[in-house]
Amino acid sequence: MNKVISNAVIRRMPRYYRYLGDLLDRGIERISSNELSHIMNVTASQIRQDLNNFGGFGQQGYGYNVKKLYEEIGKILGLDVTHNLIIIGAGNLGQALAGYVQFEKRGFKIISLFDTNEDVINKTVRGVKIRPIEELDDYVKSNKVDIAAFTMPREKAPAMAKKIISLGIKAIWNFANMELSVPDDVVIENVHLSDSLMQLSYNIVKDKN
Amino acid sequence: MNKVISNAVIRRMPRYYRYLGDLLDRGIERISSNELSHIMNVTASQIRQDLNNFGGFGQQGYGYNVKKLYEEIGKILGLDVTHNLIIIGAGNLGQALAGYVQFEKRGFKIISLFDTNEDVINKTVRGVKIRPIEELDDYVKSNKVDIAAFTMPREKAPAMAKKIISLGIKAIWNFANMELSVPDDVVIENVHLSDSLMQLSYNIVKDKN
Repeated sequence: MNKVISNAVIRRMPRYYRYLGDLLDRGIERISSNELSHIMNVTASQIRQDLNNFGGFGQQGYGYNVKKLYEEIGKILGLDVTHNLIIIGAGNLGQALAGYVQFEKRGFKIISLFDTNEDVINKTVRGVKIRPIEELDDYVKSNKVDIAAFTMPREKAPAMAKKIISLGIKAIWNFANMELSVPDDVVIENVHLSDSLMQLSYNIVKDKN
Repeated sequence: MNKVISNAVIRRMPRYYRYLGDLLDRGIERISSNELSHIMNVTASQIRQDLNNFGGFGQQGYGYNVKKLYEEIGKILGLDVTHNLIIIGAGNLGQALAGYVQFEKRGFKIISLFDTNEDVINKTVRGVKIRPIEELDDYVKSNKVDIAAFTMPREKAPAMAKKIISLGIKAIWNFANMELSVPDDVVIENVHLSDSLMQLSYNIVKDKN
């Protein structure tokens, strides 16, 4: 699949995936683009356009096969393979992420947390151990690690990025609220929790303007 | 301002705001749309289009006045007023949110957390007290509460939404991983942390497809 797909389309895919997963859980086998449009609150033509990027999946007069579409989008998103994930920074946020059962359901397996704080080292979160940061090198060398989640203090993020890249990790899920420069073969996803709070705020004030 | 602005534009605004804030911190007073385009990795024409939705702010041959643009976007996003926020669910995620100093800098003041767990009740996070959930009604009646953050277990979210709406709170920042139905005058922002993880996964696998 070498076609260039716009970022905007890609950003909507996880949402399709979640909604289709909910439909599946409710035993719904097929759905028209109009119905999907209604529950997802986007236009039916947007849905058709989006899904056409990946070859369609719909049949005229039948609609979408929910299970098939769910599985295809899962494949596009790389959810049909297991990604091993380590969390660097086992404070509240790191432990909160480790506690999410949903990630595992989607193929993201949290295999270790790391921290410098003696108070949390050797504790476990849902059975996953918090290790001292000094063990990071050896751990990464002897385990397959696909993704490092950055939940350590912001100022430690740039050095840690260099470190994990030197160890061969190719993906960073970055909560450190700072843009990190990484080589082209390393992928990074920045999470800015305050962005959603600002959108909420926009919606609170907009009717008052 | 009664013009309808697309969701896509609104979703980009917090990002402009963050980048402009960084420029300000670095003492940069003006910037061309080309330079802004370069650091934000979007096209210059996209930037001009986006900002034209709000009346422009740019001057031909001069570029954008960083401080003015930052302040104007802040106003659009409602960041020039203080929003009082309570957090319902003081587990790891709730405590992590309460620990973010940045929210306060943007006008979001966390005034209380609530929980049912005796182990955390009466503890404080950055000076903010965790109260027993039984005190929620009285607290909301005697304090101005603009936003409720939902960080409690998923299954408790629908009943809690009804409860806080009945108490007059008009905005929910929802981490409960479940769509909640709310009346038209209540605004809600759903945060799905797994969406960003799925986008990361897409970027990991896409070059292998």
